[in-house]
Amino acid sequence: MSRASRGSEAGVGIGLIGFGTIGTGVAKVLHNNRDVICKRLGFPLRLVRIADLDLESERGVDLGGIQFDADAAGLIADPEVEIVIELVGGYDVARRFTLDAVAAGKPVVTANKALLAVHGREIFEAAQQQGVDIAFEASVGGGIPILRALREGLAANHIDSLHGILNGTTNYVLTEMEATGESIEVVLKRAQDLGYAEADPSFDVDGVDAAHKLALLAAMAFGVEIHFDEIHSEGIRGLVPLDFEMAREFGYSVKLLGIAKLRAGEAGDRIEVRVHPALIPRASLLASVDGAMNAVAVHGDAVGPTLYYGAGAGELPTASAVVADLMEIARELRRGNSGRVAPLSYPHACLERKPLVPLDELYARCYLRFTAVDRPGVLAHITGALGDRGIGIESVIQRGMAASAGAVSVVVLTHAASESDVRGATQYIDGLPDVEAPTLLLRVEEEA
Amino acid sequence: MSRASRGSEAGVGIGLIGFGTIGTGVAKVLHNNRDVICKRLGFPLRLVRIADLDLESERGVDLGGIQFDADAAGLIADPEVEIVIELVGGYDVARRFTLDAVAAGKPVVTANKALLAVHGREIFEAAQQQGVDIAFEASVGGGIPILRALREGLAANHIDSLHGILNGTTNYVLTEMEATGESIEVVLKRAQDLGYAEADPSFDVDGVDAAHKLALLAAMAFGVEIHFDEIHSEGIRGLVPLDFEMAREFGYSVKLLGIAKLRAGEAGDRIEVRVHPALIPRASLLASVDGAMNAVAVHGDAVGPTLYYGAGAGELPTASAVVADLMEIARELRRGNSGRVAPLSYPHACLERKPLVPLDELYARCYLRFTAVDRPGVLAHITGALGDRGIGIESVIQRGMAASAGAVSVVVLTHAASESDVRGATQYIDGLPDVEAPTLLLRVEEEA
Repeated sequence: MSRASRGSEAGVGIGLIGFGTIGTGVAKVLHNNRDVICKRLGFPLRLVRIADLDLESERGVDLGGIQFDADAAGLIADPEVEIVIELVGGYDVARRFTLDAVAAGKPVVTANKALLAVHGREIFEAAQQQGVDIAFEASVGGGIPILRALREGLAANHIDSLHGILNGTTNYVLTEMEATGESIEVVLKRAQDLGYAEADPSFDVDGVDAAHKLALLAAMAFGVEIHFDEIHSEGIRGLVPLDFEMAREFGYSVKLLGIAKLRAGEAGDRIEVRVHPALIPRASLLASVDGAMNAVAVHGDAVGPTLYYGAGAGELPTASAVVADLMEIARELRRGNSGRVAPLSYPHACLERKPLVPLDELYARCYLRFTAVDRPGVLAHITGALGDRGIGIESVIQRGMAASAGAVSVVVLTHAASESDVRGATQYIDGLPDVEAPTLLLRVEEEA
Repeated sequence: MSRASRGSEAGVGIGLIGFGTIGTGVAKVLHNNRDVICKRLGFPLRLVRIADLDLESERGVDLGGIQFDADAAGLIADPEVEIVIELVGGYDVARRFTLDAVAAGKPVVTANKALLAVHGREIFEAAQQQGVDIAFEASVGGGIPILRALREGLAANHIDSLHGILNGTTNYVLTEMEATGESIEVVLKRAQDLGYAEADPSFDVDGVDAAHKLALLAAMAFGVEIHFDEIHSEGIRGLVPLDFEMAREFGYSVKLLGIAKLRAGEAGDRIEVRVHPALIPRASLLASVDGAMNAVAVHGDAVGPTLYYGAGAGELPTASAVVADLMEIARELRRGNSGRVAPLSYPHACLERKPLVPLDELYARCYLRFTAVDRPGVLAHITGALGDRGIGIESVIQRGMAASAGAVSVVVLTHAASESDVRGATQYIDGLPDVEAPTLLLRVEEEA
């Protein structure tokens, strides 16, 4: 029987590689929500096969009628499997399974932003050649349909900018630090105990995960090819409770943002992409995004400001996005189609390399926290060094009791200044004998 | 030359009926953003013809190469026009143009929620019979891609509830009343001067527009057929500055919400739909939605809470949604397809009638403002009437200087109580000789 005719009777067959947290969520959604999925689609999605190395753990999922073994290659080759879900994570094995599925002419749904950030070009090109779909809504913002919004909902717009809270772990840590006044070490430990943070949290805490996601978002927003390792990324390890207190006093919250902007210029467009903790106005919607939630603010030239909010991770929210992708691809399969919308919103051949704006060209108000010996004249030294470079000061607050005894924290909110001037000043200041620790620099994002 | 082959050279031809504010925006977006539209689609959208009765007004749009006259029937019949945009507004004429276009085998894009709320069934059935697409993203939430989110992004979910700020005019009025302490008359006058409100603002202020939109959202969320006139709607005319002050004191903001919930029960599912001003927690995202902006919070069983925010009206934001629909339909036309996704998310034949939950069954904390003669014992009378019906009181605040001299305002925040008990009590209280004006009842929506 041909696939199309079988499909019309029995639905579209799904194979799942990777039966961890998200894979379990996908199996649950396909099972528990099969009524609504079938009603909306007009035919069912059938999970026919699962492959994972761990055949023992109890996942709380009814596996009746599903072949479950460790044979991913067999799953990919199985004629019953019409769409492959790749949820193994990581780079190499995930890449191999994805390319094998594509080579077998099968569309792939993945939640793996790391894979796409590193091997995206190879995978998208292979898929285009084979005429199969690749979908990855779950890879950014968990269950939030943000990629669909960029690809279709806002497709008539030139996107000007996007500001995203893209990592739930760090947003949980920052929210807790702001609420409790506790140190990052204490909060991070609690996040690990609660399962919000990995045993080695570097990937999240240092901004790598957010940079992976931002690379995908920027590609879709601006039609550019961006390698995630070109994205300037700073994590949240340098933040102390005082920073939240001072930020609040100035009218701001501290959030780890992924920021991408199109900068039009006479010599052509350039792209500004960066990940770092930033001060954003407390009245902004992004400042109200608490805990492990994610949100992306997108500004288009026609639509103006928009925002998309939801759970950025977790078993069921991520599964919600995976199954939405399955439904979209299954529809196309049943009509004998693929490639309805380019996976990165622009057809792959249209993706351009555009120059990135060097960090030094940023121009923003800055929050600076200096740690200096508590000695007369220190404040004059610091503020003098800023003034010498033409950096105007809006507020200065000096507090005793910094990390080391006898040291003070001096917090400065500058007027808008160029990043190169600010960095020049802080480098000079960090070399002063009275300065005890590297200066913390946070940029103010008024538009966020 | 066949349409398909012509399309592949010259793009898809668009005809626009109704060249008012939004129509002008659509012409601008199609012109100014043709580069990005063509890149994303792979072919251009060509605005070939516009019909409007007003041929004189200067719209600031380059009409080169576009046939512009008053002949809507000619536009619909024109073989160059492959997709018809209906932006005339209202009911009868819009219905006729839409059905004529469908009968001519042409897909229709509209922003007309009133049309769909009243004639939706007829239009969707005609479109299905003819095998042409109807798209209406612009009809709810302006430029926010909320209908796409419900139809596709969240399609794997049972939707539990949605709470929307669906009308920009009333949200502007409420935001201003809260910020300035001015009366609704003063603020509404200003809104009219600024063009945010119509000369006759009843449609917005009395909740009719929000009910139209809620009927569409609820149909898509729950797969039900709801007539907008079955939706209990209350407007904002009864609100006075004191209400905002008291709400703030209790920790709430006042917003006009469209609310739809699925209420599962042993005897089957029922639907709760209502439009009214409500008290929502000040810390909620919806409470931060200010001015003429819109937002819809959607809760799905897998994805959990999500929210979509953006401009709910205006020339370019609405045009952003219209052109997104054009792009989606043009893609399908070029592939010789239609009907990819059911316009109301569920295939039309699946839309069910489900019983609505009677208002009396609501169970919520309530804000009550009584207007009574300032005489000893009045407070006891009022609170006694509440107590007699088992309605617990959380806070009471009595203020002098109500609208009429010698009267006081008594504001009560109740514990959760049944609507029927609360209405029974207020009816009794409104009949007391010391009570001078009908009691204002606002429900508290903690989940919003």
